[in-house]
Amino acid sequence: MKKYLQIMALVGAALTLSGCGKLKDSSLANNATTTSTTRKKSYQTTNTGKNGYTVLMKNGRYVISEIAGLTATDNDNSVDTRELERGLIKISQNQFSPNQYVFQEGQYLDTSTVTDWLSRKSKSNPNGLNPVNNGKKDANKRNPIYLEEIIEQDYLTGLGSKYQIGGMSLGLAMNSVDYYQKKRNGAEFQTDISRAEQRAQGEKMANEIVARLRKKKALKKIPITIGLFSKTGKDSLVGGTYFAYGTAASNSSKITKWKSVSEKMQVLPTTGNEKAINSDDASHFNDFKTAIQNYFPNISGVTATLRYDNGKLAQENISITTQFYGYEQIQSFTRLALSTAKKYLPNNIPIEIKIGSVDDVQALIAKETGDSDYLVHVYGGE
Amino acid sequence: MKKYLQIMALVGAALTLSGCGKLKDSSLANNATTTSTTRKKSYQTTNTGKNGYTVLMKNGRYVISEIAGLTATDNDNSVDTRELERGLIKISQNQFSPNQYVFQEGQYLDTSTVTDWLSRKSKSNPNGLNPVNNGKKDANKRNPIYLEEIIEQDYLTGLGSKYQIGGMSLGLAMNSVDYYQKKRNGAEFQTDISRAEQRAQGEKMANEIVARLRKKKALKKIPITIGLFSKTGKDSLVGGTYFAYGTAASNSSKITKWKSVSEKMQVLPTTGNEKAINSDDASHFNDFKTAIQNYFPNISGVTATLRYDNGKLAQENISITTQFYGYEQIQSFTRLALSTAKKYLPNNIPIEIKIGSVDDVQALIAKETGDSDYLVHVYGGE
Repeated sequence: MKKYLQIMALVGAALTLSGCGKLKDSSLANNATTTSTTRKKSYQTTNTGKNGYTVLMKNGRYVISEIAGLTATDNDNSVDTRELERGLIKISQNQFSPNQYVFQEGQYLDTSTVTDWLSRKSKSNPNGLNPVNNGKKDANKRNPIYLEEIIEQDYLTGLGSKYQIGGMSLGLAMNSVDYYQKKRNGAEFQTDISRAEQRAQGEKMANEIVARLRKKKALKKIPITIGLFSKTGKDSLVGGTYFAYGTAASNSSKITKWKSVSEKMQVLPTTGNEKAINSDDASHFNDFKTAIQNYFPNISGVTATLRYDNGKLAQENISITTQFYGYEQIQSFTRLALSTAKKYLPNNIPIEIKIGSVDDVQALIAKETGDSDYLVHVYGGE
Repeated sequence: MKKYLQIMALVGAALTLSGCGKLKDSSLANNATTTSTTRKKSYQTTNTGKNGYTVLMKNGRYVISEIAGLTATDNDNSVDTRELERGLIKISQNQFSPNQYVFQEGQYLDTSTVTDWLSRKSKSNPNGLNPVNNGKKDANKRNPIYLEEIIEQDYLTGLGSKYQIGGMSLGLAMNSVDYYQKKRNGAEFQTDISRAEQRAQGEKMANEIVARLRKKKALKKIPITIGLFSKTGKDSLVGGTYFAYGTAASNSSKITKWKSVSEKMQVLPTTGNEKAINSDDASHFNDFKTAIQNYFPNISGVTATLRYDNGKLAQENISITTQFYGYEQIQSFTRLALSTAKKYLPNNIPIEIKIGSVDDVQALIAKETGDSDYLVHVYGGE
């Protein structure tokens, strides 16, 4: 099965979509830079906001994890990528306080190790975490690929030029659908994997991974948190979400207690027979959409992505796609969209309204007037 | 020459670039809507900010000028489009106070009239404002096309369902270069037109236009302001600027006094032998650019567009093009760009820093947290 393993090109379009988020407090703009005495190993940190982690950089550069983008099959849906990382950071905040730990993308798992882990178990690959190929072709009799991707995040403690690993988080992206072919280049079939099965397999793999990591000297005695993420099907418009996480305490090779995570995403307007998660939210969005679509003849699309945490609306990102012709027209439309948002949209959650023609800008820093402060906005919400 | 007249498709890519600007005060979000008693003629206005105009809409829709995008030749450079409109609005504010007048795109000049005006004068087109074809092919002996485009803006007074024209502004886009061919489908040659010649021709045409407009009943007694705009050459990265304007008083068919406008645009880093308008500004930008380019390996471009009004820096828009991979990476980079901006960039002018992969989003409205106010930003600066 190794032939399916793909290291997605680092410049690949799919991954580019993942760079989103939001900074909460533009007043917290300290760029704490600490440089060690030797030039070769210079560490810098950059604070990423009120509730976010300080990021540890090396030789002035952001450090990327070697295994980022490594997947078990080619059935990857790019909308999962951002949530896989964002969700694990949120989970990690419960275990590794941003006040005590700095963040770095994972530096302990390497490509060759994870390539083996993501592959099926076999004689030549005893470390494979995905099940052996039992030779069956029937959707419900074959062994599907359960584990699609692993991401690693390191949480470090230290100061100046001395930082040491203090905790680690891993995200296991579990397939909710495994796509396969019965013969090479043949038609595509799929094995659906229930949430219960995702969870059972994920928990088992998580413990196996923790046991393996404990063999590395640096990782023997640190807490390791593992989140289980449910990937979406190929055609999903919204990313998958984490559904459970647990931590192996620093003196343990097992995760003994799993906590559930309830996070849901939905795109409005819904399509087909899909029902709105919350009909009030859907109707408020619809009022907003109708109001602004009346004003201009040339709006081609108004959609929203809503995120629910524990059943409560936690973020609403609206995208308005249009063709504008003039300076005054966009000024006037933006003002109108603002007042319409104030009238119809919920006022107690973060809301982003992006007006544009293509989904491309990722962040904005601007001073609105000469004497105002900068505003900072990273697209995609917190 | 009529075959060269082009009505740029309303959905054309070139014009799409023009929809930019900035709203100054997000607290001024009143959407004053006034509806008349008859359903057929319903007027609404929308306030566009502290120093901007309220826009008059009709039947709930923004009204577009019929002549928008109509050009004399096909040598149009799309970077001019936004400045042509924005600059005329700024000029108009001197004459038609946003407190007294509401804005509407021009409704008096129609396509057929302006098509005639933009064409060369000839037996069949006595109203052509561009000079007769003298048959000469030599760059300095032929009569170039001086006037490339006309835009109209109407400034109305009134209340409720009754609005009447109270003033008009026209922008005359004068070519600084006129491209031509000596034979059909042949090589391209160009006639350069000096600023003095642009001004002389523009002033003459302006008076001719005012005289013609005075024949229309509704326009007999309103002040008419005309701005002279210098278009850039085909390859310019920055838009052209207005260089003069004047007003025909309500009782006059002539513009007797012209005022000069000094506005300059520059893209940094400069290319070739071009010198920076202000070397301090260029060096501050360079410090900023160097600092952020050190941090990440994958930034592909950092450029700035600076606008100078009367020799003073008035706006700096920076565009950072990059490929980002992760949620935390963009969080961290944005924070870094913010602190670097605070360190190196001037703090007394509006600054926009756009981080993205393509130049596409036009405006943003967002609440950064549940309890914060909306921030509003339209790309491109004021």
